[in-house]
Amino acid sequence: MELLKNRITKDGKVIGSDVLKVDSFLNHQIDVKLFKEIGKEFKKRFDKKEITKILTIESSGIGIACITAQYFDVPVVFAKKHAGTNMDKDSFQSEVFSFTKGKSYNVRVSKKYILPEDKVLIIDDFLANANAASGLIDIINQADAKVVGVGIVIEKGFQQGRKIIEDQNIQLESLAIIESMRDGKIVFKN
Amino acid sequence: MELLKNRITKDGKVIGSDVLKVDSFLNHQIDVKLFKEIGKEFKKRFDKKEITKILTIESSGIGIACITAQYFDVPVVFAKKHAGTNMDKDSFQSEVFSFTKGKSYNVRVSKKYILPEDKVLIIDDFLANANAASGLIDIINQADAKVVGVGIVIEKGFQQGRKIIEDQNIQLESLAIIESMRDGKIVFKN
Repeated sequence: MELLKNRITKDGKVIGSDVLKVDSFLNHQIDVKLFKEIGKEFKKRFDKKEITKILTIESSGIGIACITAQYFDVPVVFAKKHAGTNMDKDSFQSEVFSFTKGKSYNVRVSKKYILPEDKVLIIDDFLANANAASGLIDIINQADAKVVGVGIVIEKGFQQGRKIIEDQNIQLESLAIIESMRDGKIVFKN
Repeated sequence: MELLKNRITKDGKVIGSDVLKVDSFLNHQIDVKLFKEIGKEFKKRFDKKEITKILTIESSGIGIACITAQYFDVPVVFAKKHAGTNMDKDSFQSEVFSFTKGKSYNVRVSKKYILPEDKVLIIDDFLANANAASGLIDIINQADAKVVGVGIVIEKGFQQGRKIIEDQNIQLESLAIIESMRDGKIVFKN
């Protein structure tokens, strides 16, 4: 997606060898106009699939998932990392390691919101080693529902995420795939 | 907003005397169609105001803020409760007590994303004692920006939030105001 790649090149900041900071438009400040184009692109890429629900994970996936859901006309469910006292006790759980936070979380989804008949599209901002995506796939499997695909805004193509997801025969669509970020220079995969 | 009040009556669950659970459409599973109507209603209520940015707080505010921002054609910024290693060190901070989590958080917004020229609309899912809203107002004040208004989906009208916000001469618009939730019965204020 050229619009997105151009924006990453213009506003993304590489920190060290493997952190890409895109908080000016993706995960702290949110460019909602860009998100609408992202949503339309996901709709194009998964247009032939039957989808009943979009599943994402708090917090940075929520905005992308909600804007995208408008084009699929389905509800969003977001997995919780920080369950409050209101959270259903009867929930699916999976352990996820967060690279940016440097620790593991239990992510939870109430059993009421993923049902065996659901055909679920997973949406998230980043894919690196597929930690979050694997947790969400695990939850969908626990619910006996179907994983229709995984839609990612930015994939770190030099990490293992794609292999992990494609080895499960799941369609993975990433709107920008980064091949390398050496010396602060972002190179995209064609 | 009748559509919203009907939905709360139909799907909201009262727990104890002051917890309203609306996770089937508002803050775990998200009814994006309803959110679009909520966004349009906020646009109507703040239509005469100049707004350059919407500020909310993770996680449940993000979806509402993003869908709403489409009707105002402005970016969203969400205050972070759980700052990762990527978070700017140079940030505005405010302490917020979370009722549902039973503890205080420091919420943070990078100084880059609220500027003195900004005219900011705060959007959130709930208003009770205005803890989150007060933290966001504090951050906007620290940035020397202007608080244009506060837009809330569900206000607990029997708590102190409205007084706290209106005492600062800030326009508060709540789409559903609950007068009481005694014995599991939700009564709205007219």
